Amino acid sequence: MHILVTGAAGMIGRKLTEQLAKDGALHDRAVEKLTLTDVFPAPPPLGIAAAVDIITQDLATPGVADNLIAGRPDVIFHTAGIVSAEAELDFDKGYRSNLDGMRALLEAIRHAGGFRPKLIFTSSCAAFGGPFPYLIDDEFHLTPHTSYGTQKAICELLLADYTRRGFVDGIGLRLPAICVRPGKPNKAASGFFSSIIREPLAGHEALLPVDESILHTHASPRAAVGFLIHAAGLPPDRLGPRINLTMPGVSCTVAEQIAALGRIAGDKVAARIRREPDPLVIRIVDGWPHRFDAARARALGFEAERSFDDIIRIHIEDELGGVIR
Amino acid sequence: MHILVTGAAGMIGRKLTEQLAKDGALHDRAVEKLTLTDVFPAPPPLGIAAAVDIITQDLATPGVADNLIAGRPDVIFHTAGIVSAEAELDFDKGYRSNLDGMRALLEAIRHAGGFRPKLIFTSSCAAFGGPFPYLIDDEFHLTPHTSYGTQKAICELLLADYTRRGFVDGIGLRLPAICVRPGKPNKAASGFFSSIIREPLAGHEALLPVDESILHTHASPRAAVGFLIHAAGLPPDRLGPRINLTMPGVSCTVAEQIAALGRIAGDKVAARIRREPDPLVIRIVDGWPHRFDAARARALGFEAERSFDDIIRIHIEDELGGVIR
Repeated sequence: MHILVTGAAGMIGRKLTEQLAKDGALHDRAVEKLTLTDVFPAPPPLGIAAAVDIITQDLATPGVADNLIAGRPDVIFHTAGIVSAEAELDFDKGYRSNLDGMRALLEAIRHAGGFRPKLIFTSSCAAFGGPFPYLIDDEFHLTPHTSYGTQKAICELLLADYTRRGFVDGIGLRLPAICVRPGKPNKAASGFFSSIIREPLAGHEALLPVDESILHTHASPRAAVGFLIHAAGLPPDRLGPRINLTMPGVSCTVAEQIAALGRIAGDKVAARIRREPDPLVIRIVDGWPHRFDAARARALGFEAERSFDDIIRIHIEDELGGVIR
Repeated sequence: MHILVTGAAGMIGRKLTEQLAKDGALHDRAVEKLTLTDVFPAPPPLGIAAAVDIITQDLATPGVADNLIAGRPDVIFHTAGIVSAEAELDFDKGYRSNLDGMRALLEAIRHAGGFRPKLIFTSSCAAFGGPFPYLIDDEFHLTPHTSYGTQKAICELLLADYTRRGFVDGIGLRLPAICVRPGKPNKAASGFFSSIIREPLAGHEALLPVDESILHTHASPRAAVGFLIHAAGLPPDRLGPRINLTMPGVSCTVAEQIAALGRIAGDKVAARIRREPDPLVIRIVDGWPHRFDAARARALGFEAERSFDDIIRIHIEDELGGVIR
């Protein structure tokens, strides 16, 4: 089978590609070709038997999506897009990257005709906006408080309509905060949820821009890749017409994250967090949802970690080779 | 003040324009200029003191929205768009008219800069999609089953984001079925809700394409114009960040509509309805919501009729000069 990954240079895109390379197959079908696209050069996965095409272009540029779709990928993982704080700071770039890119992709598929690829889209729980009930169920409305959340919510609607019309076989996954993100901090307003774990574990100081009482829902990068791969194998008749799903995760406060860090790595490591409130981050995060029911996703077999301790352990295993500094 | 009405040749646009002409003012501010735009020539309102500009162009054509916004309207009533069945039959036309038109308008306002008009958008309860709870509250999600509903839901999201960013002072009104629509049948799948009342009252036969047990929520054209005018006077601080509202209406079955017709106009008139099931209409209407709470809209002073009898009486008063054939 031929798999297209957009946003292949991004964190989720790279981890997904590595997993596909490692498995050599997707739900028992051998991966014969892998097309990786992003505005930045996607790293070629190591040890893959499939043909790999790396296309460094912007999906929103006219013609780019058509060229990608001309290769008739069986499965498309659409993870491309810019992150929340960047979309808030650069209005035009956010709509171009997060909305126009998706629309170009969907239009290219529709115009190609005669084929109906599986399209797995990474939406975000930032598509929700407060005030929130104690637990957000699967029928709560999307009233985002950021341009990023707005763009994700619009993409969900487009994906559902193009799916209903039979142009594509879509599924949207509202990811919780992905934690612990490896690598350098990015412009996501949610970045601190990861850096307060990652940086101390690597021997560095981390800044905490919000209050410790902030509660949020997290899943590991490993769980996120698991969601994407699981979604690719879900038959449309199990999914029904409501194709956009809130993914499960671990709900905990920042204080509970820090306590888990102390349990696993010791108080010396947990003491490497410095409080430095940031009004922009506080404003964005304040508008984000807290706890999700995610009943439909769980019933459909999507699985996240059970505790924040597990999330930290996965980071140490997957990123640090088991070593804490 | 300068008022811009898009979709000014449409039913709601024309009725709104007539009301503005009659009042000569909007919330105590004299109407000095009225710009009427549509893809069809908008009829100039009679007896209006204000300057009237009629612009027959497509809002989605590059430059058209910019030209309209160059006149710096204080209030914009954006009622333009194609109806549900047409958007379902012509995918491209639906997205162009209902989505690209709105985006062009919002972008023109953003790029004009230095002014922040009031923008009242006519959304639709077709933005909802089943399965539904008994009563749809103000926090129920939008999962439309039509391209039309999808386009309306996307416009709501865009309007909320452009409002949050301070480019415009927006409010979206999810209209129930507008009943009794005057004039000839249009391509709206909801058309029969009106024609089964309008045609018999005018001495003609009407076709009923769905079962009599279908329950729907209705408001008169007079109520719809009232919603638009009321919305134009609502201060943003009363509205808060959730600027898209489900409007109130009268919930009743088709059987109850027919019973009301019999009460008001006699059984001979009510007997002019012929049952002729239409699979496309049945499919579209089946996906539509039934009963709404509309608690927020009611609390904000939006008012619809109390009974379907009232809706029929308003039609007879406003359209038939009080005469039933």
